[in-house]
Amino acid sequence: MRYCRIDDGGRPAFGLVEDDVIRLLDGSPLDGGRPDGRVRAVAGVRWLPPIVPGVFYAVGYNYRSHVEHTAGKLPERPEVGYRANNALTGHLSPIVRPAGVENRFEAEPEVVAVVRRTLKNASRPEAQESILGWTIGNDVSARDWQHADRTFWRSKNSDTFKPMGPWIETDVDPMVQTTTVRIDGSVVAKFPTGAMVFDPFDYIVETTKYITMHPGDVLWMGADATVQMEPGNVVDIEISGIGVLSNPVHSERPPDE
Amino acid sequence: MRYCRIDDGGRPAFGLVEDDVIRLLDGSPLDGGRPDGRVRAVAGVRWLPPIVPGVFYAVGYNYRSHVEHTAGKLPERPEVGYRANNALTGHLSPIVRPAGVENRFEAEPEVVAVVRRTLKNASRPEAQESILGWTIGNDVSARDWQHADRTFWRSKNSDTFKPMGPWIETDVDPMVQTTTVRIDGSVVAKFPTGAMVFDPFDYIVETTKYITMHPGDVLWMGADATVQMEPGNVVDIEISGIGVLSNPVHSERPPDE
Repeated sequence: MRYCRIDDGGRPAFGLVEDDVIRLLDGSPLDGGRPDGRVRAVAGVRWLPPIVPGVFYAVGYNYRSHVEHTAGKLPERPEVGYRANNALTGHLSPIVRPAGVENRFEAEPEVVAVVRRTLKNASRPEAQESILGWTIGNDVSARDWQHADRTFWRSKNSDTFKPMGPWIETDVDPMVQTTTVRIDGSVVAKFPTGAMVFDPFDYIVETTKYITMHPGDVLWMGADATVQMEPGNVVDIEISGIGVLSNPVHSERPPDE
Repeated sequence: MRYCRIDDGGRPAFGLVEDDVIRLLDGSPLDGGRPDGRVRAVAGVRWLPPIVPGVFYAVGYNYRSHVEHTAGKLPERPEVGYRANNALTGHLSPIVRPAGVENRFEAEPEVVAVVRRTLKNASRPEAQESILGWTIGNDVSARDWQHADRTFWRSKNSDTFKPMGPWIETDVDPMVQTTTVRIDGSVVAKFPTGAMVFDPFDYIVETTKYITMHPGDVLWMGADATVQMEPGNVVDIEISGIGVLSNPVHSERPPDE
């Protein structure tokens, strides 16, 4: 199943995507929401992030070639970081490059686990049973700020820097998929989604030794490629078996055209 | 006014604290919740964190003497960091020291701003008008983990590491108050709450250049003292004009007694 969340006449609504229609639910899939008969056309819908997490977990260096490329050190243990909800935006909504950003302004294509149950001291089988489904995230990063600032506050958490979607796919094994990034339709990066240093279940097992994870929490799994984006581009991140997260890149300043 | 949030028969409820009673509200004070006639006694109530934020902002080095004490560098700009909601707990609930924590296990007494409106590119007067009220936070920190780990994930975000409360005081100027920390009733630290490098409005003005802040977001303002805690202690953080946040410290292992 594909759970989505859309703007339905100014109010957020959860839905199930089936071909070219969305069957709206009477509540969150995390609370057992079921189709209530309302149907919307996929065409023209405004997609929202499919979930707004209580805690927004994000993994840093988690692909061997990305770590080597950035001269970083391979992590010895699965240690989560965090992102902020203000930065979330949906499929087809613009990524806005702030006025002060120059040089490297990059997409990081990531698979995202959506947690469906409360977890503490989870075993690996419990972690594997705890996922509602999988979606796609773009961990947009302004590198000058990332290097200059004490924290990732504006380099990774400025408004619109965390597109997520288009939906949560429940019936997919993310570890055997392919992640493909396209800029204006041309493939610029491609890697096996599952070639991670630590997989999502490693992270959940380690994290929940100390931390209770809750329904709706999301875990972004890191990227094996970074891709430069310029205002005017359209950035597509496809993960086979899940879908395509597509976002135009705008400039905070009025566009040149 | 003092807005609180309590466990009312297994369900969270907002309330107004008036002397020894709590007048329950029909909704969040952020949504205009008003007293609905239900009254509860303060005695024996289970206090919850007075708000669960969409984004949990926290400021690092923000007091001159604390920065000098830790041989850190004074921040040149107000740059926020983040904490995680799983770690929140209420007034009188235990802080649980995890089994693996030894050596420095410390309280950091902080004043907390609770945002009441949506803010982007806020002016200083807008920032000053944007605060619902002020509460107290204890930024519990396990120093060995803080120094060993890549992020603050378990050192500052393990379950129960972020007591917040007891309530949100709307009628106080936090910048002219005194923060006092007591361990088992003995004063162990005392400092002027307002002796900050950057004040809350500096942070809001700078943050909202890039980031939209939303109703319910919290901003923890840093500490000018750290205090060692041991299982069996009771840690009180008092900020004059707001109240006292009190939490017993437990060990994850069965207590010695």
